[in-house]
Amino acid sequence: MFGHVMDDLSPAEVEAAAKLYGPLADRVRELVAATVLTEVDGPDVAKAIELIREATALLGSAAIEGSFGVRWTIDGKRRTWGNAVVGLRNPVAPPLDIRHDEEQTYADVVLGPQYEGPPTLVHGGIIAAMLDQVLGDAAVNAGAPGMTGTLNIRYRKGTPLGPVRIQAAVDRVEGVKTYVTGQVVVDDVVRAEAEGIFILPKEVRNLGDNPPPGLLAPGD
Amino acid sequence: MFGHVMDDLSPAEVEAAAKLYGPLADRVRELVAATVLTEVDGPDVAKAIELIREATALLGSAAIEGSFGVRWTIDGKRRTWGNAVVGLRNPVAPPLDIRHDEEQTYADVVLGPQYEGPPTLVHGGIIAAMLDQVLGDAAVNAGAPGMTGTLNIRYRKGTPLGPVRIQAAVDRVEGVKTYVTGQVVVDDVVRAEAEGIFILPKEVRNLGDNPPPGLLAPGD
Repeated sequence: MFGHVMDDLSPAEVEAAAKLYGPLADRVRELVAATVLTEVDGPDVAKAIELIREATALLGSAAIEGSFGVRWTIDGKRRTWGNAVVGLRNPVAPPLDIRHDEEQTYADVVLGPQYEGPPTLVHGGIIAAMLDQVLGDAAVNAGAPGMTGTLNIRYRKGTPLGPVRIQAAVDRVEGVKTYVTGQVVVDDVVRAEAEGIFILPKEVRNLGDNPPPGLLAPGD
Repeated sequence: MFGHVMDDLSPAEVEAAAKLYGPLADRVRELVAATVLTEVDGPDVAKAIELIREATALLGSAAIEGSFGVRWTIDGKRRTWGNAVVGLRNPVAPPLDIRHDEEQTYADVVLGPQYEGPPTLVHGGIIAAMLDQVLGDAAVNAGAPGMTGTLNIRYRKGTPLGPVRIQAAVDRVEGVKTYVTGQVVVDDVVRAEAEGIFILPKEVRNLGDNPPPGLLAPGD
């Protein structure tokens, strides 16, 4: 599908790339938080802008065109490193490190000031974004992936900035539709809950009964 | 309410602060996009990290504690500059510049590679975040603000990265609940649609029939 790219990278090369670009994105995340909170004056802002412009020019001297897309390696692994919620190398992403156990799919993350909506609380839209991602990944993990069809969210209480758990589990699969539920939890209290329906796209259905594993993944 | 801060700033000082910190955030947005796309090698990444660390330290030398919150000026205007979707000085925010006409509340924005989910498409969670914000702002503009109670999103078609319109209008107000509908539109085609219920918080209800204008705003 459009935007899927096959890279001629070995597993070792992929690991090296993660170790190179992951810490870079972490440093930019720190800069993002500092930008939200800074109170320095004009001359210092001007100096910071000069440093940032220089870093941007340096990074831009060799770059992928368009967007990162989804990149595949020769051993059939996929990388969604540009993804806005889980992307290892995307400073907009917290990023979520999504895991699975026998009962559920979940992520524990600490959200900084750049995710604020109401004062001291996580933005409702960021909560929606994290739920979309974790619910979608639960569908993938259950072997029933899909694009988000509908996502219904109920906000029960404010979610404070800081440590947050997002969790989800597949409720049922009906044909091409996977029904998933999930919650955002802080201090053992459910702050928001969601129901999502994830639908296998027509393009993938046409590949037959067994689409290649991993063709769809979190964020799709 | 907690997290609301009264700043002793005149309108001219607020304008000067916007002109200082807005362009800083814009430069960080460019750096964020470059970080997603860069293909430079180890030595250049190391150089970029050094520049970014230096900028972060400089900006951190005088900073707000915790989060930006919602800041008020002496003339009763509020600033949600730290907001994750509309925040002028938050590089995570695109940011949306939300406007109102007689028919609707809307924002036109160009989304770069840092908002990707499926290859070449906007992340479903980012779509949810923008809808939450614009629907909430439509409720504010109608004089019936609230925190997001529920948000139901239906994804109809993929939303390509690039220019996107998000629009919303209040359907009806029932007591403390405001019902709002909205859409994400690209090339005159609806890509996603949403219904939201925004609920006036108890704390604000207790202030009487007429809460201070602007106490609730986009993102709350």
